[in-house]
Amino acid sequence: MNQSPMSELDITAANAAPPRFDAPFQAKLAELIAWRRDVRRFRGDAVAPELIEQLLDLAQLAPSVGNSQPWRWVSVDSAAMRETIRANFVLSNERAAATYRGARAELYARLKLEGIDVAPRQFALFCDRGTDQGAGVGCQSMPEALDYSVVVMIETFWLAARAAGLGVGWVSILDPRQVEADLDVPESWKFIAYLCVGWPVEEHIDPELVRHHWQDRTSAGRTVLSR
Amino acid sequence: MNQSPMSELDITAANAAPPRFDAPFQAKLAELIAWRRDVRRFRGDAVAPELIEQLLDLAQLAPSVGNSQPWRWVSVDSAAMRETIRANFVLSNERAAATYRGARAELYARLKLEGIDVAPRQFALFCDRGTDQGAGVGCQSMPEALDYSVVVMIETFWLAARAAGLGVGWVSILDPRQVEADLDVPESWKFIAYLCVGWPVEEHIDPELVRHHWQDRTSAGRTVLSR
Repeated sequence: MNQSPMSELDITAANAAPPRFDAPFQAKLAELIAWRRDVRRFRGDAVAPELIEQLLDLAQLAPSVGNSQPWRWVSVDSAAMRETIRANFVLSNERAAATYRGARAELYARLKLEGIDVAPRQFALFCDRGTDQGAGVGCQSMPEALDYSVVVMIETFWLAARAAGLGVGWVSILDPRQVEADLDVPESWKFIAYLCVGWPVEEHIDPELVRHHWQDRTSAGRTVLSR
Repeated sequence: MNQSPMSELDITAANAAPPRFDAPFQAKLAELIAWRRDVRRFRGDAVAPELIEQLLDLAQLAPSVGNSQPWRWVSVDSAAMRETIRANFVLSNERAAATYRGARAELYARLKLEGIDVAPRQFALFCDRGTDQGAGVGCQSMPEALDYSVVVMIETFWLAARAAGLGVGWVSILDPRQVEADLDVPESWKFIAYLCVGWPVEEHIDPELVRHHWQDRTSAGRTVLSR
């Protein structure tokens, strides 16, 4: 395993004094959260493998139910396999497009929803629903907590990647069972996400779907009910 | 909506130059990721409402499929409702405990898996599976992408909370349908997570389940297959 000095230090320094995160760091973290984007427009130039390894080391420190670490990475490298995944996207996207009518359908057809043709690194993320690690703690009444552990890991990776200037795009317009079959993963692995990773062509603070007038941000998720 | 100056700036500064995240920030972010913990031991003292509002503003900037922002927050405040949730946990935990045998069962009984009795703020998080926002983009072939959007928001909140010194604990040992019934949420809301939030009694770099010899970290999720 290729660990950066930083993450090596973090993992082994169990007796170190807890770090303080000061106001300037908190403000910069807020900027990072604000400027993280779902990227679909990538430059074609390579990403240093060492940078990817460093991000995977960090992502490995993400929370997981029962410390199960159920995420499983498949790096999709070959042109043939990328073509297979892209065909899955095209078919799934045609089906989705057919559900819209009129101006909405025209707008949908113009949206750019993935960067599979260009992104230099591409990963399919799975959850090993059959893992013994964690011995089932926390996922007996909610087995989906295992899937959610993969998702929290993805957001950890996403923010760390953005801090390094890298763009990440999450493609969910795929037939998940077809991805599992095409990538020939073990029976117990459930497909969670397909990530395109690379240097972004542009940087924006507003999401692509806001900028292209598909969906504004609203306060729907900001309202807090009390009980 | 009570927005901090920071997030106000972030949301409106659409024409601002993209920020640079330098090596010292990246190193501090790595420390944040390493020192984020699932916290179950809380001090009882209150958390300033303004801090919670600021964290909710930031979490609102999390990614979501189709910009659907499907997360729904319920703040569980009353002693009676907390008792109801805790009873759900106790029953679910008894069922889970009964599946272990011997030394594993003894160890399980000693684990501290939640802080519902003490945590000053408690939130149930739901996914509105019936939301119109986003008009279905990205969740037709994988409807679970809506649930995953709530989870990426939770990790965003979690890291921002840790940077402010706040502990977050995710309780998944609950009957999810019972939580929905007890909190009397709309039919289309699916329970995702129960979060305890407050000032932590202790800070650790190693997860509680590692420290208490339930489950070590392994390299299982660090291996990358290629296709």
